[in-house]
Amino acid sequence: MRNSRRGGVDPFIVMDVMEAARQAEADGRHIIHMEVGQPGTAAPKGARDALAAQMQDDALGYTVALGLPALRQRIAKLYGDWYNVDLNPDQVIVTPGSSGAFLLAFTALFDAGERVAIGAPGYPSYRQILKALSLEPLDIQTADANRLQPVPDDLKALDFEGLMVASPANPTGTMLNRSAMGALVDLCAQKGAAFISDEIYHGIEYEAKAVTALEITNECYVINSFSKYFSMTGWRAGWMVVPEDHVRLVERLAQNMFICAPHASQVAALAAMDCHDELEANMEVYRANRALMTDRLPKAGFTRFAPPDGAFYVYVDVSAYTDDSRAFARRILDEAGVAVTPGLDFDPVRGAQTLRFSYARATADIVEGLERLERFMRSAGFLDG
Amino acid sequence: MRNSRRGGVDPFIVMDVMEAARQAEADGRHIIHMEVGQPGTAAPKGARDALAAQMQDDALGYTVALGLPALRQRIAKLYGDWYNVDLNPDQVIVTPGSSGAFLLAFTALFDAGERVAIGAPGYPSYRQILKALSLEPLDIQTADANRLQPVPDDLKALDFEGLMVASPANPTGTMLNRSAMGALVDLCAQKGAAFISDEIYHGIEYEAKAVTALEITNECYVINSFSKYFSMTGWRAGWMVVPEDHVRLVERLAQNMFICAPHASQVAALAAMDCHDELEANMEVYRANRALMTDRLPKAGFTRFAPPDGAFYVYVDVSAYTDDSRAFARRILDEAGVAVTPGLDFDPVRGAQTLRFSYARATADIVEGLERLERFMRSAGFLDG
Repeated sequence: MRNSRRGGVDPFIVMDVMEAARQAEADGRHIIHMEVGQPGTAAPKGARDALAAQMQDDALGYTVALGLPALRQRIAKLYGDWYNVDLNPDQVIVTPGSSGAFLLAFTALFDAGERVAIGAPGYPSYRQILKALSLEPLDIQTADANRLQPVPDDLKALDFEGLMVASPANPTGTMLNRSAMGALVDLCAQKGAAFISDEIYHGIEYEAKAVTALEITNECYVINSFSKYFSMTGWRAGWMVVPEDHVRLVERLAQNMFICAPHASQVAALAAMDCHDELEANMEVYRANRALMTDRLPKAGFTRFAPPDGAFYVYVDVSAYTDDSRAFARRILDEAGVAVTPGLDFDPVRGAQTLRFSYARATADIVEGLERLERFMRSAGFLDG
Repeated sequence: MRNSRRGGVDPFIVMDVMEAARQAEADGRHIIHMEVGQPGTAAPKGARDALAAQMQDDALGYTVALGLPALRQRIAKLYGDWYNVDLNPDQVIVTPGSSGAFLLAFTALFDAGERVAIGAPGYPSYRQILKALSLEPLDIQTADANRLQPVPDDLKALDFEGLMVASPANPTGTMLNRSAMGALVDLCAQKGAAFISDEIYHGIEYEAKAVTALEITNECYVINSFSKYFSMTGWRAGWMVVPEDHVRLVERLAQNMFICAPHASQVAALAAMDCHDELEANMEVYRANRALMTDRLPKAGFTRFAPPDGAFYVYVDVSAYTDDSRAFARRILDEAGVAVTPGLDFDPVRGAQTLRFSYARATADIVEGLERLERFMRSAGFLDG
């Protein structure tokens, strides 16, 4: 049977790691999961209780395409609480996860053949979704000196119709501060390119509050989700903020492409936004895990990384040990019993010499994982003494 | 800010009807809803109970992209139970509603600029999603003599890369029998075009069991959903069956475009599939409503329609009364207090002279709606005596 060219997207290499880890566990081995990019925690109890109650007497049919009005208002309020930004709830569109927001943003903004610049390393699905929509991802090789974030000098000489940034970023956890983001916004305005800001890790920050693009301009698309800070990955609920004159355009696309985000997930998400204590308890775990990682990874020989500003990842240059991160990750799984992600998913060029470690799980797992990593590196002869 | 051309999809006209109905209700009027294409019932109690239980001790994180293995197996079993088709569960892909399945099918099968034939009248989002993906919808004006389903003679002279059929169809409720569908499958095979069968209304049939394309060929994409027979519209859970050699292709797209269908909805859907008694009780309501509609619509002057084989719609030719179905629907809302859908959403050409009546709601509402319609048609002078 026929198939398209654009459907031929790259596989996730991390899936091979996850399958190998699953196989090892099926064989009776104990594996520490540092490959997975999601919290180990459930949706907050208040969210689950709200849904359990509402399921009793609400048919939970389609919502309007833009999402439950109360949820849109609550999200707008978050921008006041978090950033002191006064946001019109009409600009908020509830989406089926940030994934749904990417699909909406890219179809609303770009026609087939147009180019969207993205930083490498970066979230692999940006590149793959762009290809699936007949768009051209333009990988920007970011510099260590810029903490692996794009800067205007990387982009000035290039032609593109859109730029997508992520702060805090996956896989690095580094952020763009206000002036760095402002410079990119200005460059896009000069070039007539759309500026899209992926803010899915907002709320998970350690030193300074992350900057939303909406502090700088209204002429942007901002994408966020309930998956990370609100601990609701599997629920597939996210949101997007668009300029007022783009709401109708995106609404029509959303009506046709999704009808609506899952109603049950919207109910749970609305309640999750008021579960402050449970969410901050999760944050305390991430904070403790991050301190452990930045302290103990170097002792295991993983010294070359930028300390993460946010999210729950450390992205490490392992070029001293390998130029085949895939084989190296496999060896770590087999010999140390720790699953980690090879950098190739995030950066097809330089990712052969990098690994991503996730610290989203319980602290006890992180402690055990770090011990195993150090033992492995020592016995493999990569550490002195 | 820039926007794309492909994002400029048509609005749903029914949304105007729904907004006008909402406004009328806000003004204190009582409206009968015959415009809405979804069951009034909730997900089966067994489905909600299963989710409530699982929410207690499962974090409900991401599932694998293809969906929960138990759900894929249960769906495969349905093809044995319903059609006596022995289906490999590996071919089943759980999707975020049939909407998600359309996005996956179209990107897996077609490149920008390619043409996909669809019958008019038909579900409006087919056309809009195709446009959003830079594909070209090819409207086939179907004939009354063919009960508004496409036949090979409509298609032989045309060039296209895919054909999408729906049986039972929205808005007509008419079905393709095995030989009619087989003829279309054969034509597509001759032309090298992909054959996609939208089977979302399967299970809601009145005279004969609907035919799945999988009874005829394995070389097709079949799309279905938990929204209609399983009464779970807002949960956004559906599925797609693809040839074995397309599974990896679609899996990679699904990983990137959606990550997974909502986990909570998958849990509920799995349980819903065993809620036979409640689902059949819903069917008894549809069956009673259908009998009322086919009996009493003609008495109200709505005589020109094909009796529906399935789904919960009657699509009526009202050319004797209007050539502006939008204005006519508005008048029915204002004067009769019944919300109905103008045909223009389904058929931009002939839909100015058609209306769709939905009978998905409670029987008491259908009785009241039919009485109001007859009173209106009489007082408006459209009926004799």
